[in-house]
Amino acid sequence: MVESMHLVSRAHRPEDTVVEVGQVRIGGGERVLIAGPCSVEDGQQIRDIAEQIKGYAHILRGGTFKPRTSPYSFQGLGEEGLRLLAEAGRAAGLPVVTEVLSEEEVDLVAAYADMLQIGARNMQNYALLKKVGAQDKPVLLKRGFAATIEELLLSAEYILAAGNSQVVLCERGIRTFSGSFTRFTLDLSAVPILKELTHLPVIVDPSHGTGHWNLVEPLAKAALAVGADGVMVEVHSHPQEALSDGPQSLKPEKFRLLAAELNALAQFLDARRGGGQ
Amino acid sequence: MVESMHLVSRAHRPEDTVVEVGQVRIGGGERVLIAGPCSVEDGQQIRDIAEQIKGYAHILRGGTFKPRTSPYSFQGLGEEGLRLLAEAGRAAGLPVVTEVLSEEEVDLVAAYADMLQIGARNMQNYALLKKVGAQDKPVLLKRGFAATIEELLLSAEYILAAGNSQVVLCERGIRTFSGSFTRFTLDLSAVPILKELTHLPVIVDPSHGTGHWNLVEPLAKAALAVGADGVMVEVHSHPQEALSDGPQSLKPEKFRLLAAELNALAQFLDARRGGGQ
Amino acid sequence: MVESMHLVSRAHRPEDTVVEVGQVRIGGGERVLIAGPCSVEDGQQIRDIAEQIKGYAHILRGGTFKPRTSPYSFQGLGEEGLRLLAEAGRAAGLPVVTEVLSEEEVDLVAAYADMLQIGARNMQNYALLKKVGAQDKPVLLKRGFAATIEELLLSAEYILAAGNSQVVLCERGIRTFSGSFTRFTLDLSAVPILKELTHLPVIVDPSHGTGHWNLVEPLAKAALAVGADGVMVEVHSHPQEALSDGPQSLKPEKFRLLAAELNALAQFLDARRGGGQ
Amino acid sequence: MVESMHLVSRAHRPEDTVVEVGQVRIGGGERVLIAGPCSVEDGQQIRDIAEQIKGYAHILRGGTFKPRTSPYSFQGLGEEGLRLLAEAGRAAGLPVVTEVLSEEEVDLVAAYADMLQIGARNMQNYALLKKVGAQDKPVLLKRGFAATIEELLLSAEYILAAGNSQVVLCERGIRTFSGSFTRFTLDLSAVPILKELTHLPVIVDPSHGTGHWNLVEPLAKAALAVGADGVMVEVHSHPQEALSDGPQSLKPEKFRLLAAELNALAQFLDARRGGGQ
Repeated sequence: MVESMHLVSRAHRPEDTVVEVGQVRIGGGERVLIAGPCSVEDGQQIRDIAEQIKGYAHILRGGTFKPRTSPYSFQGLGEEGLRLLAEAGRAAGLPVVTEVLSEEEVDLVAAYADMLQIGARNMQNYALLKKVGAQDKPVLLKRGFAATIEELLLSAEYILAAGNSQVVLCERGIRTFSGSFTRFTLDLSAVPILKELTHLPVIVDPSHGTGHWNLVEPLAKAALAVGADGVMVEVHSHPQEALSDGPQSLKPEKFRLLAAELNALAQFLDARRGGGQ
Repeated sequence: MVESMHLVSRAHRPEDTVVEVGQVRIGGGERVLIAGPCSVEDGQQIRDIAEQIKGYAHILRGGTFKPRTSPYSFQGLGEEGLRLLAEAGRAAGLPVVTEVLSEEEVDLVAAYADMLQIGARNMQNYALLKKVGAQDKPVLLKRGFAATIEELLLSAEYILAAGNSQVVLCERGIRTFSGSFTRFTLDLSAVPILKELTHLPVIVDPSHGTGHWNLVEPLAKAALAVGADGVMVEVHSHPQEALSDGPQSLKPEKFRLLAAELNALAQFLDARRGGGQ
Repeated sequence: MVESMHLVSRAHRPEDTVVEVGQVRIGGGERVLIAGPCSVEDGQQIRDIAEQIKGYAHILRGGTFKPRTSPYSFQGLGEEGLRLLAEAGRAAGLPVVTEVLSEEEVDLVAAYADMLQIGARNMQNYALLKKVGAQDKPVLLKRGFAATIEELLLSAEYILAAGNSQVVLCERGIRTFSGSFTRFTLDLSAVPILKELTHLPVIVDPSHGTGHWNLVEPLAKAALAVGADGVMVEVHSHPQEALSDGPQSLKPEKFRLLAAELNALAQFLDARRGGGQ
Repeated sequence: MVESMHLVSRAHRPEDTVVEVGQVRIGGGERVLIAGPCSVEDGQQIRDIAEQIKGYAHILRGGTFKPRTSPYSFQGLGEEGLRLLAEAGRAAGLPVVTEVLSEEEVDLVAAYADMLQIGARNMQNYALLKKVGAQDKPVLLKRGFAATIEELLLSAEYILAAGNSQVVLCERGIRTFSGSFTRFTLDLSAVPILKELTHLPVIVDPSHGTGHWNLVEPLAKAALAVGADGVMVEVHSHPQEALSDGPQSLKPEKFRLLAAELNALAQFLDARRGGGQ
């Protein structure tokens, strides 16, 4: 078993923001691995997954209020899901992140979660951005799938301007013509561009970015190689039975192998940085 | 002076939804022309514009809560803007439409406006869709600039499923590589596709769709020719001094010429339909 | 039966280039309707179609050297197809246009055709552009499906710089994310932009632009309304048996109805222009 | 000084095609680094660059017939450029690759170059594909900037079907809305997808894919991490004076540092593969 990554010493700038999620630090040289199911489905499911990723992932993710294209798709367990997620995280010793969809639910979600996620569809929901900016839990802001770099930064600015400086940016794929093999086109060039333009940490979600579990590993490695501060991936014990996004979810054993690979790659990258070209 | 269009008899299906905004009917053969400034800036401005478009436009538009990419751009006059817009509409005998950005402001906006607009950036803000679906003012739902046809229809479904069947869809341009001469690419093929798939009225916004006032006329005509149930355009008395979107705004005199052209074109199209080729 | 359109008097500028294809004039106020099958399949097929569109279309189109994505798809009849196309055109009194794919076939194609088409995939095949620029048959240059306005104009410039000023530009759809209902997104805003920037005629191909025959009529009308100098559509007597592009082909009787509609619309648009707003 | 990479033992399949360019092998576990200027400008320039990248790059690139958007831009030195490129390669002990634009120049280019490049704009120039398929120098086929994965593979199939199985595919960025910070969006997900679908080697061009020299290093590393069989980058001794593509060119000293990083990363990746998870 690989120990949980406490990845150190990526060459970084003193002004880089370090975002703290529970005991986990993101940015300023610390990389993060966030994992968990697309949706919290029941107590057993989320506890099992949390148990299986413990020691490999730093943060547990799980959707409780789900932004679904159709009003007739599974919408998530809501507050019950929040409770189950928080319990599973506590039992596994992992802080938890979950998406908030509604201004009116910000306080509720913040009462359970250690980090609030703003999804791609809400990246320009300015009312919601202001609300999460006015509370003090850290925020994971996903890039809208047709948002420019400038627009992502200005959406982050809404949160910062409202008083919350604990923001992590997340590239998760843009919509292009290139749709038959991937759901989106993961824009890895966004990572070094964002790192140049902002002091905020930048992570990558190759699960949503590709839509296929077998593309997650190569693109997660590419994300670290291109300079990301972390990776967020979907993990499910029984992907074929998942209520949402099964095809892009890794099984826990594959996830642990991926974590080991990412850990080794991160150490390699840090060693090269330290070696001082 | 041209009389206000009460355009009749486009061949339509009995099941087509007719949306009523005050006395104005949209769909089922009735076309609509919505006009006004991007933002309500002050009482004088909005009254002047309303007065100048009276008899040519059917509905007055004007932004009061503005969704701006940057938190430091002009954000609209808020409730004061709502009051000024409603007064200007009343004085000119025109119902008014304005955008609602926040779940918490739905009741406030609905207290002043005759129709609530959901902007492109909020097309997949499901919490907001549910809210406007749970009140009884008609809704103008703009297509997100990277939303597929299916996604637009399913977002409308959120409103319908919440109990409000008075929904007008609006094509306003999609984001493509083709950016140096237009802000967006107006997807006019969406109009006949949507007309085939849904009973809801479909209108087109060539002002946002192109970003340039001199492209508004040709694309507004094309919108009618392709089968749209109406057009929404931005009008400003002094575009070069507008607080937002000046370059895509028509001056009132140009707007009246456009209205006359659209009126004539609509009559021609209806005559061809009626004449039974 | 409607007479062949000799559409006059669209307000135009003295410097507008008029391209002559046989007796047919394109640009400078003269609109054109080009029709025919995607591919010339045999003598019977192309003669039948030519006969059926006679009096409605001005130019007969038909592919003889076909640019097919796969090397294993039908590649066209080659020189035999050229001969059949030219004969069918002569019999029907229509000049013919067909695509040239290879530098080495330019002379051959020019020996049979009245106009040479450069397809979307070859818009930036500069060797081919120079070749067609160095002979004296007029050229129909289709916009590449990811080409900007500037790139289209500069590709035309290759032809003009090589000595041939008889160039017609053709918008035929760009590649966007919006793919489930249409093959491409027809960019009608390109028409007024091009008309502003160049003296060359600009036409629209709604068959390739949409990929569905039932979208051809509304988008052809929109093309005229937006200011195009003509329309090119695919016509096939038995679309379901066509060797290529059947789903986007109109049957001849539908084409004749479309031609009548376009003729009426063109007259209406010219009358409005003439009426002097 | 780092030794030239002879990178071995990436886990590969027995059926993988190995393409041989002079002594250099690409694919089947062997990675390649191709470098050189966008254009061959004069003898001094290309000899200097060849000398400086010797021992770090495996193949020298340099444009001699240049596909330029405008007919009035520098079009390359033509045959003189070919001669200079071949001499510089011979002096440095590096095989050379250069683009061929015209069917009529295939024999000429093949007389000087060790590998023929088909550029993105000509990916669907089927006449040219057939020509390079009918000669026996290996071919570097770049993905068109709006080409799907299927289209790229089918274009390669044109070459293979004509008798030449020595084809290397190259991802070089696709055209998306995301244009203000990069020229194109490098689609790294294409690499593992292509590797899954084809036995041909797949390399990445981060210079054209991003358009900015400072993005070349992170994306070149990401390319190796995602599984590419090599990288092609632009190098120029005086980027600010380059006749084309200066902004995306690395200086030789930066290139050598990059080569060392890529070499180390390749060894790390191979060691992990070898370690047998």
